[in-house]
Amino acid sequence: MIKEKLNIIKVGGAIVEDETSLEGLLMSFSSLKGKKILVHGGGKIATQVASKLGIETQMIDGRRITSAPMLKVVTMVYGGLVNKDIVARLQALGENAIGLTGADMNLIMSVKRPVDPVNFGYVGDVKFVNVRSLKSLLEAGAVPVLAPLTHDKEGTMLNTNADTIASSVAKALSGEYSVTLTFCSSTPGVLKDVNDPTTLVSKISKADFRAMVSDGSISEGMIPKLQNAFEAINAGVSKVVITSAGNLEGGTTILADPETDD
Amino acid sequence: MIKEKLNIIKVGGAIVEDETSLEGLLMSFSSLKGKKILVHGGGKIATQVASKLGIETQMIDGRRITSAPMLKVVTMVYGGLVNKDIVARLQALGENAIGLTGADMNLIMSVKRPVDPVNFGYVGDVKFVNVRSLKSLLEAGAVPVLAPLTHDKEGTMLNTNADTIASSVAKALSGEYSVTLTFCSSTPGVLKDVNDPTTLVSKISKADFRAMVSDGSISEGMIPKLQNAFEAINAGVSKVVITSAGNLEGGTTILADPETDD
Repeated sequence: MIKEKLNIIKVGGAIVEDETSLEGLLMSFSSLKGKKILVHGGGKIATQVASKLGIETQMIDGRRITSAPMLKVVTMVYGGLVNKDIVARLQALGENAIGLTGADMNLIMSVKRPVDPVNFGYVGDVKFVNVRSLKSLLEAGAVPVLAPLTHDKEGTMLNTNADTIASSVAKALSGEYSVTLTFCSSTPGVLKDVNDPTTLVSKISKADFRAMVSDGSISEGMIPKLQNAFEAINAGVSKVVITSAGNLEGGTTILADPETDD
Repeated sequence: MIKEKLNIIKVGGAIVEDETSLEGLLMSFSSLKGKKILVHGGGKIATQVASKLGIETQMIDGRRITSAPMLKVVTMVYGGLVNKDIVARLQALGENAIGLTGADMNLIMSVKRPVDPVNFGYVGDVKFVNVRSLKSLLEAGAVPVLAPLTHDKEGTMLNTNADTIASSVAKALSGEYSVTLTFCSSTPGVLKDVNDPTTLVSKISKADFRAMVSDGSISEGMIPKLQNAFEAINAGVSKVVITSAGNLEGGTTILADPETDD
């Protein structure tokens, strides 16, 4: 049986925070036909709001420490400010957008990350994606807009990386749909030379990735993104792409590992 | 045909903002059988967050002026912080809660209130309730948790009074369900003497209401609430009650106007 197509677009903080980029991305997203899901970040806005509220932002290895006050900030900013702004704009573009966190309909359940070796605070590692509820929303014609928040099913919201939300949802829904997962940021994709956009790599295999990490041509922030991408393509997602907001059809396509006999 | 029952509970800011009251209310709400919707406020938390962000809260006749920065605050606080906290807690109680604003699935569309005679800013007057989408959520077993936010379908969120959201939704759904609308605050209901909880009025008609306004026994905040309540009961809502969080089965029942021949 041929599965129906589903586009999952993950849009990073740098785009969400820039008025012109966001408008362009939402127009492109709106022009995509068929079933689709948008996953958004918003870290810089959270940092700004936290700062105004006198809450210090602490990062370790580029990842946010989510203290109890910071959890309130990300719940406000991701679940409220950013999510509802995107939903209202998509509604104006005629999309039947519905803004959701992992708590809503128990869509994404997570467990609080162990405090060893690093105590990241109220950060959740995804344990369960509610395929049935997401599918029912998609089948009803809704366009889910997912904030990077989950819950522990015990009454507490948890902060979860938006790339992880996108790849977890893509993997979970790949049994039901032919999923294209697009990570959309401000760079055009994987570059041989990060300072030269013309050195775009159109396709990348795990072997290419390892070689580029070894020779230092893949930068720090791209490594976890590519790891997420390889995990998704090898877990049944039909297509995984890393691209820029202005070029949803281009970018770098992630190649699945060759099948082996073992 | 006998319509299925639907409980719509509106819970005011004073309860949402008090940990013990909120927990009690959510337990009571969770014990209600059948289809149900929770509508919440959260004004005091918005005022606190605004104050910390250096945004001044201006009120006219007890109603908030929603400037552009205040719209961001209420979108964060109502749509994010308060809404997702309630959803996560209800999920922990086994309820299939889904937190929504009027923008989500275009559930409640409003128009920005005219600037004459008072410019309330980004405040929306309800124009349309999406009965079909609300019904599809209820029929799928979801428990909608509605924040007091609407949108104009042109990309802008608007601030709308939670009592108004509750009565608008109750009226709109009364064609589909036998709706009981319960306004739940920190007072036990309509009191003959506001300082004496034993003077509870168990039933109130429009004539009683007018008499109590004339003799000054109904206080300022209760007047718009009762007006909302009478409007709802006369527009097809089966039962309208004003009560306290700890007593969802008690309080003051609103009597419909007698039917006339004209």
